[in-house]
Amino acid sequence: MIDIALIGTGGMIPLHNRFLSSMAARLNGSILLIDCGEGTQITLCQLGWGFKNLDYICITHFHADHIAGLPGLLLTVGNSGRTEPLIILGAEGIRGVAEHLRVIAPELPFEIKYIELPSANTGAQTSYILGKYNITALNLDHRINCFGYALNINRSGKFDANRATEQKIPLKFWSRLQNGETIKYDSKIYTPDMVTGPARKGIKVAYITDTRPTDSIPDFIYGADLFICEGLYGDDEKRTKAAEHKHMVFSEAAGLAKKGNVKELWLTHYSPAMTIPDDYLEIAKNIFPNTRTGYDRMTTNISFDKE
Amino acid sequence: MIDIALIGTGGMIPLHNRFLSSMAARLNGSILLIDCGEGTQITLCQLGWGFKNLDYICITHFHADHIAGLPGLLLTVGNSGRTEPLIILGAEGIRGVAEHLRVIAPELPFEIKYIELPSANTGAQTSYILGKYNITALNLDHRINCFGYALNINRSGKFDANRATEQKIPLKFWSRLQNGETIKYDSKIYTPDMVTGPARKGIKVAYITDTRPTDSIPDFIYGADLFICEGLYGDDEKRTKAAEHKHMVFSEAAGLAKKGNVKELWLTHYSPAMTIPDDYLEIAKNIFPNTRTGYDRMTTNISFDKE
Repeated sequence: MIDIALIGTGGMIPLHNRFLSSMAARLNGSILLIDCGEGTQITLCQLGWGFKNLDYICITHFHADHIAGLPGLLLTVGNSGRTEPLIILGAEGIRGVAEHLRVIAPELPFEIKYIELPSANTGAQTSYILGKYNITALNLDHRINCFGYALNINRSGKFDANRATEQKIPLKFWSRLQNGETIKYDSKIYTPDMVTGPARKGIKVAYITDTRPTDSIPDFIYGADLFICEGLYGDDEKRTKAAEHKHMVFSEAAGLAKKGNVKELWLTHYSPAMTIPDDYLEIAKNIFPNTRTGYDRMTTNISFDKE
Repeated sequence: MIDIALIGTGGMIPLHNRFLSSMAARLNGSILLIDCGEGTQITLCQLGWGFKNLDYICITHFHADHIAGLPGLLLTVGNSGRTEPLIILGAEGIRGVAEHLRVIAPELPFEIKYIELPSANTGAQTSYILGKYNITALNLDHRINCFGYALNINRSGKFDANRATEQKIPLKFWSRLQNGETIKYDSKIYTPDMVTGPARKGIKVAYITDTRPTDSIPDFIYGADLFICEGLYGDDEKRTKAAEHKHMVFSEAAGLAKKGNVKELWLTHYSPAMTIPDDYLEIAKNIFPNTRTGYDRMTTNISFDKE
C-alpha cells in the first residue's frame, strides 16, 4: 500500500489557504516528495508524516514556485534527527541550483546525493530505482526544462508451490525465497522468481506539471491508478493564455487522463486567481468523469489489487 | 503617522498559524520590511498593504528563518508591477547571499541596490537615511553577525513667524520653506530651519532579534515609542538554554525595555514549542508592565505628539 498526499495545489504564488503544488508518497515508511516551493514545509508539517524519513526529493523544474522551499525544508529535515543521505533528483543543473540555495543552509547532518536527469527532447524518458520506488521521468513542454514523474510500485507474482516442487527447491527455503531473498546453497543459487508465478499488476501514480499537453504524456501515464495533473486555468476560454504560458486548462488535463486510460484524475497547480476550482470541475468531468479537484493535504492510499 | 505591523512572530520554523519573525513599516506609502523568512510573502499578502511599494528590505542576519523567503518575495514584488529600484540592507556579504538565492529569481523588472553594513564589534552603530526613514543598525550578540534596527522618523520644529521676520525672509517664501524647500533668491539662500523652532520629538521604533541582551541595547532603543524584541522562550528556567543559543527569555526582553525607558514592548520570535505566549506574559509584565505578546499581523499606528 502506498499513501499519496497533495501537499499544495497552487501555482506561481503561495497563499495562506493554498500552498504551492507539491505531492508526497509514503511507502513502507519511506517518503518521496515531488517539488518544494516556498512554504512546502509548512503544509507538509500539517500533514503529520514527519520529516525524518524524507528519503527522496524530485524536482520538476527550477521555477521558484517549485523549488524555493528547498533550503528551509533541508534544515527542518536536519532538525528532525536525520543522518542518512537524502537523494535529490532533477534536471541537469540541479546540483548547482540546490547548492546555491544552500548558501543559507550550509551545514546539514546528512549527505545530499544528486541525480541529474539528462537533457533531451520532449518525450524522452529516464528511469531510476530509488529504494522501493521505480521512478520514470518524462521530458515535458514548458518554458524551461521540466519533467513529469511516474512512480511505479512493482509486485512480484504469487507463490507457486508447483513450480517450487518441479524445480526441486528445498522446502526449508520456500518462505525466504517468497520474501525476496536469494539463497546460495550447495553450489546452487535459488532466486525468488523460481517460486513465483508471473509478476502481478503493481501500482502506478503519475504527476505532471508544468507543461502543455504533449503526445508522449498519454503513453507515459497509461493505466495509472492515480494521475495528478496541472490545470492552471479552469475555463476553456483561457486555453490560449494557458498555451502562451506553457500550461494547461482543466479540459486538456482531462483529455490526457482519457487518452491515458487512467483510473482517477486529480487536478492541481491552480492560478492564484482561481478562487474555487470546483466552479470548473464539470468541464473536466464531461471529458473524464472520474476527475477530482485537488486541495492541500488531500490524501488517498492505493493498495495492490486483491488476488 | 507610521503604520507598524508584525508580519510573523515565530522563530526557527514557519508554522501555518505562526509565520517567521518579520516586521513592516509604512510611511507616506513607502513600505520597509525587516527580515524575510520562508513564507513571509504569504502573511504579508494577508496584511493587504500590497507589494509594489516595498522600497526597503533590512535583513538582521543570514540564518534561513530570516532570509529564505527573499527570492519568492522579490518575484512577487516583480509581478506587482514595480520597476523602481529596491534597496536591500544587511550585514557584510548580503549581496553575495541574496544573489545566490536569486539563482531561481534571476530576472526581475527592477534593480536591486545593496547596502552592506560594516562588520564591527557588538555595540557598533551605523546610520542611513533611506527616503523618510532614518535607520540605525546596531551590532548584536548572536551566533553569527546580526543587527538590530531602529527607525527614526524626524520631525522639524514648529513654524516661527518671529524668526522669519527677524531674518527678513520675504513673506512669499514662508510657506515653501515651511514645506521643507530650500530657496535661492537674489544671491541669498533660504533654508527651512530659518523659519522653524527647534526640532520636535519624532517617532522611534526599534526591532531587536536574534541576540543575547547586550549593554548597548538600552541606549539604542532609548525612549522608543515601540520596542519589538525577541523572546524565544517564556520561562525564566530556560535562561541557560536561551544563552546557549544566543537568544533571550521574556524577562530579559522586559528588562531591556525597562532600562531603555520605552513606551511599549511587543514580544516576538517565539520558539515553535511555545504554543501560547500569553502563558508567560505576566513574567514580562512584572518587569515592564506595558508589554504585549505579538502575533502575526498585529498592527498599530504611531503619530507625532500633539503640540
